[in-house]
Amino acid sequence: MLSKISIEMQDKPLILVTNDDGINAPGLHALIEVVRPFGNVVVVSPDKPQSGASHAVTMHHPLRLKLIHQEVGFEEYSCTGTPSDCVKLAYKIVLNRRPDLLVSGINHGSNASINIIYSGTMAAVFEGAMAGVPSIGFSLLQYDTAADFSAAKVYARRIIRDVMSKKLPDGVCLNVNIPDVAEGDIRGIRICRQAGGTWIEDFDVRKDPKGEHYYWLKGEFARIGEGDDTDEHALEHHYVSIVPVNFDFTDYPAIEELKRWDFS
Amino acid sequence: MLSKISIEMQDKPLILVTNDDGINAPGLHALIEVVRPFGNVVVVSPDKPQSGASHAVTMHHPLRLKLIHQEVGFEEYSCTGTPSDCVKLAYKIVLNRRPDLLVSGINHGSNASINIIYSGTMAAVFEGAMAGVPSIGFSLLQYDTAADFSAAKVYARRIIRDVMSKKLPDGVCLNVNIPDVAEGDIRGIRICRQAGGTWIEDFDVRKDPKGEHYYWLKGEFARIGEGDDTDEHALEHHYVSIVPVNFDFTDYPAIEELKRWDFS
Repeated sequence: MLSKISIEMQDKPLILVTNDDGINAPGLHALIEVVRPFGNVVVVSPDKPQSGASHAVTMHHPLRLKLIHQEVGFEEYSCTGTPSDCVKLAYKIVLNRRPDLLVSGINHGSNASINIIYSGTMAAVFEGAMAGVPSIGFSLLQYDTAADFSAAKVYARRIIRDVMSKKLPDGVCLNVNIPDVAEGDIRGIRICRQAGGTWIEDFDVRKDPKGEHYYWLKGEFARIGEGDDTDEHALEHHYVSIVPVNFDFTDYPAIEELKRWDFS
Repeated sequence: MLSKISIEMQDKPLILVTNDDGINAPGLHALIEVVRPFGNVVVVSPDKPQSGASHAVTMHHPLRLKLIHQEVGFEEYSCTGTPSDCVKLAYKIVLNRRPDLLVSGINHGSNASINIIYSGTMAAVFEGAMAGVPSIGFSLLQYDTAADFSAAKVYARRIIRDVMSKKLPDGVCLNVNIPDVAEGDIRGIRICRQAGGTWIEDFDVRKDPKGEHYYWLKGEFARIGEGDDTDEHALEHHYVSIVPVNFDFTDYPAIEELKRWDFS
């Protein structure tokens, strides 16, 4: 199912678009609209919502890929897997090469602070970065499917333009979150660190008709720590937050501390 | 389904055990054997293998929880969800408090280097650490269900003992990998950084009886970069590797670089 674009149209940058809300999400179509003028665009997106999929990969059953739409400079595929699966399939089966840019989103809902760890949107971005592709995830702080993406599109365009003209540091990708306010009320862009936070998890406990319990996950986000340099702080003050992120989980200061333990 | 242990037995440390290979995995039972002497033990583990589940959480359907076994100081539950779901359910439904220690594994297969990002074993560990619980993931470099866990058990015991007697730095949890060699051939423990690496993904492309393609994910790990301070290097030289890890994805050096971009 090799993309025509990747064979025949090597004149322009090749941009891979994906998301975790699935091929029918309005946020995906907003992002496609933003990137089309920047190059040839191939979309490989989950055929159903995959929010909360994190970096899951599908190993216990095979994947399907379906061509949805094809025109000059633009192709759209759906995939039965997770966002990570989409990126892996795109590289190997659809494009048969690395794209020049990977964008993921625009997610319906925040991926700021600790939400990044649960995020399928950002998993696709890490998958891009691990293969050396400049990669950006975009999220709007609005879960509604009827969300207004007009301000998000303006800022996504600026950030994509800068990433394509400059070079992201090696191994670094971007987690961009956009406040849910009108374009005129956005005060600008801030480069931030990831805010500390946690989910205070709770469950709706219900009984099925047989009287057996089942549990619906719900939860409330709680910020931990202070600081005016975090993504949460920027978003609260109506700035677009950009957190440069990487996929090295090592806590370097702790290495020295643990070396003093004996473990014998 | 509140645990008797968490109500009636507060005399000893409360240890939560989980994994991603599922409730029947030999590695889980090896780890249970190791932790039993350290305190009261509650196991909440997926009812089926969840390898590659990463930090996925289940939001689109409800979860079930089943008591498998109960005796003095020991309870075992299976859950229909992912490793992250197991930990959340354990905190809220089973224990109704934070445990004193969370251990995950012993995973059948490596979670060194970049494998951490796909790992359900380590997702459970991050879930523990995010709630302020000292948390350790153990993995043996052997995928075989008939793997020999005897050396892994010896080292897991030492590491758990030290973590319970000392205090892990705030927000830091441990990714422990154990080489697949006899106990006598293990040269010791090394505190390491996460090795750079990537998966060179590939797919088995097959046709179903209708002639339609389907794709099986496969891949080969490739290390990136050098250094004798990485987990991969330690494991190759028959050391147990401990990487202290955290869940702040921020790339701090890149913050300064990106602040010089204009994004206007």
